[in-house]
Amino acid sequence: MENVDQVVKNAGVLVEALPYIKTFAGKIFVIKCGGDILENHELTETILKDIVLLKYIGVYPVLVHGGSNKIDQVLNDFGTAPEFVKGFRVTDAVTMEICEMALNKINSDFVRLLNKMGGKSVGLTGSDGDMLIADKVAPVPDEKGEQVDLGHVGEIKNINPELVINLSNEGYIPVIAPVAVDFDNNPLNVNGDHVAGELAGALGAEKLVILAGEPGVVLDGKLISTLSAAKAQKLIEEGDLANDMVTKLESCITALWHKVNRTHIIDSNLGHSLLIEIFTDKGIGTMVTER
Amino acid sequence: MENVDQVVKNAGVLVEALPYIKTFAGKIFVIKCGGDILENHELTETILKDIVLLKYIGVYPVLVHGGSNKIDQVLNDFGTAPEFVKGFRVTDAVTMEICEMALNKINSDFVRLLNKMGGKSVGLTGSDGDMLIADKVAPVPDEKGEQVDLGHVGEIKNINPELVINLSNEGYIPVIAPVAVDFDNNPLNVNGDHVAGELAGALGAEKLVILAGEPGVVLDGKLISTLSAAKAQKLIEEGDLANDMVTKLESCITALWHKVNRTHIIDSNLGHSLLIEIFTDKGIGTMVTER
Amino acid sequence: MENVDQVVKNAGVLVEALPYIKTFAGKIFVIKCGGDILENHELTETILKDIVLLKYIGVYPVLVHGGSNKIDQVLNDFGTAPEFVKGFRVTDAVTMEICEMALNKINSDFVRLLNKMGGKSVGLTGSDGDMLIADKVAPVPDEKGEQVDLGHVGEIKNINPELVINLSNEGYIPVIAPVAVDFDNNPLNVNGDHVAGELAGALGAEKLVILAGEPGVVLDGKLISTLSAAKAQKLIEEGDLANDMVTKLESCITALWHKVNRTHIIDSNLGHSLLIEIFTDKGIGTMVTER
Amino acid sequence: MENVDQVVKNAGVLVEALPYIKTFAGKIFVIKCGGDILENHELTETILKDIVLLKYIGVYPVLVHGGSNKIDQVLNDFGTAPEFVKGFRVTDAVTMEICEMALNKINSDFVRLLNKMGGKSVGLTGSDGDMLIADKVAPVPDEKGEQVDLGHVGEIKNINPELVINLSNEGYIPVIAPVAVDFDNNPLNVNGDHVAGELAGALGAEKLVILAGEPGVVLDGKLISTLSAAKAQKLIEEGDLANDMVTKLESCITALWHKVNRTHIIDSNLGHSLLIEIFTDKGIGTMVTER
Amino acid sequence: MENVDQVVKNAGVLVEALPYIKTFAGKIFVIKCGGDILENHELTETILKDIVLLKYIGVYPVLVHGGSNKIDQVLNDFGTAPEFVKGFRVTDAVTMEICEMALNKINSDFVRLLNKMGGKSVGLTGSDGDMLIADKVAPVPDEKGEQVDLGHVGEIKNINPELVINLSNEGYIPVIAPVAVDFDNNPLNVNGDHVAGELAGALGAEKLVILAGEPGVVLDGKLISTLSAAKAQKLIEEGDLANDMVTKLESCITALWHKVNRTHIIDSNLGHSLLIEIFTDKGIGTMVTER
Amino acid sequence: MENVDQVVKNAGVLVEALPYIKTFAGKIFVIKCGGDILENHELTETILKDIVLLKYIGVYPVLVHGGSNKIDQVLNDFGTAPEFVKGFRVTDAVTMEICEMALNKINSDFVRLLNKMGGKSVGLTGSDGDMLIADKVAPVPDEKGEQVDLGHVGEIKNINPELVINLSNEGYIPVIAPVAVDFDNNPLNVNGDHVAGELAGALGAEKLVILAGEPGVVLDGKLISTLSAAKAQKLIEEGDLANDMVTKLESCITALWHKVNRTHIIDSNLGHSLLIEIFTDKGIGTMVTER
Repeated sequence: MENVDQVVKNAGVLVEALPYIKTFAGKIFVIKCGGDILENHELTETILKDIVLLKYIGVYPVLVHGGSNKIDQVLNDFGTAPEFVKGFRVTDAVTMEICEMALNKINSDFVRLLNKMGGKSVGLTGSDGDMLIADKVAPVPDEKGEQVDLGHVGEIKNINPELVINLSNEGYIPVIAPVAVDFDNNPLNVNGDHVAGELAGALGAEKLVILAGEPGVVLDGKLISTLSAAKAQKLIEEGDLANDMVTKLESCITALWHKVNRTHIIDSNLGHSLLIEIFTDKGIGTMVTER
Repeated sequence: MENVDQVVKNAGVLVEALPYIKTFAGKIFVIKCGGDILENHELTETILKDIVLLKYIGVYPVLVHGGSNKIDQVLNDFGTAPEFVKGFRVTDAVTMEICEMALNKINSDFVRLLNKMGGKSVGLTGSDGDMLIADKVAPVPDEKGEQVDLGHVGEIKNINPELVINLSNEGYIPVIAPVAVDFDNNPLNVNGDHVAGELAGALGAEKLVILAGEPGVVLDGKLISTLSAAKAQKLIEEGDLANDMVTKLESCITALWHKVNRTHIIDSNLGHSLLIEIFTDKGIGTMVTER
Repeated sequence: MENVDQVVKNAGVLVEALPYIKTFAGKIFVIKCGGDILENHELTETILKDIVLLKYIGVYPVLVHGGSNKIDQVLNDFGTAPEFVKGFRVTDAVTMEICEMALNKINSDFVRLLNKMGGKSVGLTGSDGDMLIADKVAPVPDEKGEQVDLGHVGEIKNINPELVINLSNEGYIPVIAPVAVDFDNNPLNVNGDHVAGELAGALGAEKLVILAGEPGVVLDGKLISTLSAAKAQKLIEEGDLANDMVTKLESCITALWHKVNRTHIIDSNLGHSLLIEIFTDKGIGTMVTER
Repeated sequence: MENVDQVVKNAGVLVEALPYIKTFAGKIFVIKCGGDILENHELTETILKDIVLLKYIGVYPVLVHGGSNKIDQVLNDFGTAPEFVKGFRVTDAVTMEICEMALNKINSDFVRLLNKMGGKSVGLTGSDGDMLIADKVAPVPDEKGEQVDLGHVGEIKNINPELVINLSNEGYIPVIAPVAVDFDNNPLNVNGDHVAGELAGALGAEKLVILAGEPGVVLDGKLISTLSAAKAQKLIEEGDLANDMVTKLESCITALWHKVNRTHIIDSNLGHSLLIEIFTDKGIGTMVTER
Repeated sequence: MENVDQVVKNAGVLVEALPYIKTFAGKIFVIKCGGDILENHELTETILKDIVLLKYIGVYPVLVHGGSNKIDQVLNDFGTAPEFVKGFRVTDAVTMEICEMALNKINSDFVRLLNKMGGKSVGLTGSDGDMLIADKVAPVPDEKGEQVDLGHVGEIKNINPELVINLSNEGYIPVIAPVAVDFDNNPLNVNGDHVAGELAGALGAEKLVILAGEPGVVLDGKLISTLSAAKAQKLIEEGDLANDMVTKLESCITALWHKVNRTHIIDSNLGHSLLIEIFTDKGIGTMVTER
Repeated sequence: MENVDQVVKNAGVLVEALPYIKTFAGKIFVIKCGGDILENHELTETILKDIVLLKYIGVYPVLVHGGSNKIDQVLNDFGTAPEFVKGFRVTDAVTMEICEMALNKINSDFVRLLNKMGGKSVGLTGSDGDMLIADKVAPVPDEKGEQVDLGHVGEIKNINPELVINLSNEGYIPVIAPVAVDFDNNPLNVNGDHVAGELAGALGAEKLVILAGEPGVVLDGKLISTLSAAKAQKLIEEGDLANDMVTKLESCITALWHKVNRTHIIDSNLGHSLLIEIFTDKGIGTMVTER
């Protein structure tokens, strides 16, 4: 009889999820996830299964991924050392080509794994349907104060979300690599966190959830569970946060500015963190709020 | 941290349900449930929450209910004693009116509770949209062998399922009371189990699930977990089954004959028996199969 | 040849109706009708045939009915005497249950007769799709000035008209019993005239037509053919009108306030009064107008 | 009170029409009417009002007209005498142009009058959307047995009904002049009765109703109320019928062969003959049946 | 090899058209063309092929034609001399009938030729669907200053464009003869240029292109390539332009006032002038602009 | 005036294309093109402009590309030498990763250039929406007769064309890289020509056009302009054709077997060869026909 007890308990869990399912049915969630997660196969499966589950219970998830580690690895395979200025990758023509190849590869891996987990997904880059339009960023001063041209690095200027909306409505989970195009249709390297924030805004998403390699925003060893956009901006300006967390907070601020309802930075290493965030009132990680 | 562990486990339960959710998305389930269940408020809430959950994860549940106990109670309130011949309620004009009033009352109760549990439901009887068309049954011999006219008692001859399909597609959970109409639009008392079986057939349902007051078909103290239609027919003919179980098996046989994929008789007293049946490979109760 | 002459005349009648048919095609008419009408079978058939005709010539009729007499009768059958304070039925739990049973029974009778007359109708109560949301009314002073709690008596606070619109568009004639639900999904007894007026408003109806047991508003033995909302309000306040006529005028005033174009109180005892009102310029009964 | 009595009677007439309205809702009726009817303004108004009424009660009427008299008149105005061989108009280039002008004029007159009667109509010829495709007829022997080339006279070979169906579904009453085109898009004079029969077939019409200048098929002074297609064919072959009635019977036979349900030849001079035919069981005129 | 060279060049021409095709896809063009063009068969085929091509590459062309010459010719055939006052045709009842017959004939000719060129077209007049509503024009002083009643001559008061929009969307090329109806559904003779301008406005057209018998507006022997609406108005008032050019400029001014984007008067005698205007940046003829 | 003459001639070219435009409107063309074409920027622009033009005139083009040269180049950059057995690339895990990266890069380049030429395109691989399902090919004997496991090389077993159809209907030009997935969602290297042939079949394409680096099938120095599938099969079996031409002929044979109407191998080096093939009766290159 023990077994039945367990199943009864499980059924109870499903039913407890009902209010959340009802609340989020028909809403768009933009989920950002690093590309390095693919190196941990089990973790990836957990995350992607959660995303497929969201799709089946009526949410419209959109996955944006990064791929820094993979880019570095391919650059190394090509015998080139990655180069950064102020957290931006210096991206000459060859590096741009390698970025694209690495990100596309990661994109295909996510697509295949989502399909394997039972989803129906489609990989996209910003070139597809002119989705992500960016401008080359201005030169950035290096440590010595000299202006460095970052090459093919861009920041998002405009988003054409029709393709993502169409595919989402047709039952697909769009998976997006952070490559944008300039107004002449040349590729530009863009930050994945920024893409997620802008896209969440352009899609009128309900939630932006950024899966980070840490539990959220941690200050003085303590996890901050709620943070206003203004406070987040201040933390960024104080300059004590790691580069990685800065772009995540910027992404949340952008999304909030575009009227996305909720933005979260949660721990990708905690199994099912996505579902926990969505299916509990308390949530986990750091929630960045409008005010 | 204990709490998070629990939540992670719960998230795992949701993900385990994914293959079942995927399999049943877009399918129609006809669920039959006695009206007496309403006397146990907690049990009713459990069952109706399960049905609402099914709706939210993409299944199209249709609820058919009975109401014998309530009918008896109202008859008593009116100072009349219920009368049965061979399991059929002898239904004169006054009894028919009381049957209708009692069943409609139960119907409204189910509708309100489903709505309270978060669903969007609509109560129907066989009169609505001429949904259930029946013929008066022939007289039945009583114990002394004399033919008794059962009055306003019918058996289903035709089903117009458009109304149920339309409401299901619009997001409602149809709740159906077993009152049919004859070809002159007069009401007839019909058996709820039979309505469920015929309706499952007419709707092209994937599953018929009958919630019984017992764990399934029990022979010699042992629960039979699988039963072919032929074997079920034989059990009926042997005459050792209670009347209640006979109509349930007849309902399953009818549904199978109309190409319903799976038919089940499960225990309404076991919390979440509906979800357990649907979300486990092994299932519970008795499954009646085509062969 | 006499016969042909008659048919030619009849054809002429049809053609004379054309301008009215053209004017009202695609418009919603909310028609209110007492439940006691069912006691006169011929009259009921006349009224329901008229409603089915309206449906076939392109109008979207919605029928709201009452049922006071039937409720009283069932209460009597149960050995309880109906009790009223200031025109409101005092409604304890048992009375509420009986109200619901009686109204549902009447509702089914209307549905079956409309179907018999050639229509396709569906019976609804305010529980279906949470259509009629009401609040419990405040206690009312009785003749001695003591506050009486009326029990399960409500007044409409909100209407969800989607279900009625959906069914109307699908070709059905919705038939509505005046039972509402409170915000916790408990049933409340509401006035049928009030339901009709609020519903006409929520549906953006072209016309509200209330079939009364008398020719319209009669003052000093004279039928008033037109009445402004302001004048109607004044008549109500003067207190000389019967309770029955007060709720009818209130219904018209509510509908007009919600921008319903025309509201009428006409005589249910006059055969085809509904068609006469609609298909003649002069109309019959009392028309209540915005100003 | 007399007046009300009349109105009540009239309402009764409307209600009596209900079963017919229900039967024919959504069905296509092809109605053929001579062009000469326009000379009798009152009669035209009666007929066109009937057609508009049919549209409003849910029938899809399509009007095909002729125009022989008008063509003769215009020919005369141009100083040319009409010339016939075996009932066919000998149609040289000039005559063809005059036919087209006269028929188009009549077509516009019908359209304007239907609109004036409350309809929404569109005039078409066989050129529009390549609707009526015809072949030039072979030469015909004259009284002396010499072969006469009839010029621009055609018989229907193919019909493209999409345009008529589209306009009908959009709420218009299509009005069709009997001018066809050959496979090189040159105009051909075709018989209006034949167009009506072929079009009824191509549209899958429920009824073909031909308004004739006489009460129907009259043999030995007696109106034949029913005629099988075979008997009609025999009558044609016996050669005693007027040319006019021959093409009407041919039209009925063609329509029946294409599975049109009912075909009728009725009297255009009898007011509302169209409605009488449609709204009585007995009908009027001659009905030609499949067998 | 020479042949292939030619084909390669031709393919290049197609590709050069691409930016124009892209710009105008889905836009409505109203094209006005005199009826006399039909006298030059080759020219007509060139123009109509261009229109069919526009349809196939995604433009929605609507053709409005005139027919003065044909009307004069038919009047002559009837033994009547055309009569004009201030450029308006004096239109008594007989003349009106002849106007209609002549214009309808031209309309059918355009329809058949468009279909022959590969299009799918439908001929319409202002009577169809009550498309063009006009008022009788006021009497006009003749040379001696006496007021002359122009008879059945109207100016456009209202346009119902639904029919044209519906047919355009269904893939047809609407061809429109300038006959309007007054509010009693009587026909009125209206100016074709004016119809084109008003219709372009009512349809929200992108372009109005008027094919004239001359290269555009020519002043002092020089073609004016661009003209503001104000300047055009001034030229009209100065009174030096031919009547024909006046109505064309009025048409452009009307269209511009209704927010049509571009209006052009181009030379119908130059082969493919329509395509040249549309597929070159420079265009040809006279463009009348908002300012 | 010279200039106008040229424009007139150009307009004539457009009009001459009309019959072809009309024939192919709404049809699907699968176009196969090598990846090496991207090395010739001008040629690429010519080809892609032609494809965008096809889209704008109503054809549904689908582009499948290859990328052997790019793969070889990236392998070299990684310090690995490409290895082939019997024309198949031996594909170990690292090579598979490089294939994917190189093909994805080429895919993005095609997408961006199509968008730059005015199209709206989306890049896909066989992983997207599980579009291309393949099985690992069996080992192949090398020159010494030893069986060589080719690694991650597959042949198409099934195609899910819904994604391509959906995107095509939404106005996008799908661009497809020849990477398939096995039934466990692992990537497999597949031949681009084969993908084109199978996809043309699965899409019910009207035409398959393969752009080759040569004028078509050349035997004994002579271009073969028509070839039956049987003859093509025989040529393949005789073994005298280059590997490259063999897979192109196999692709045509596959497409014909799946009822694709026309298959062509044409010269990618000839400017506008695609348009010439489509817009001339004679066509160019080699057409492979069913019989």
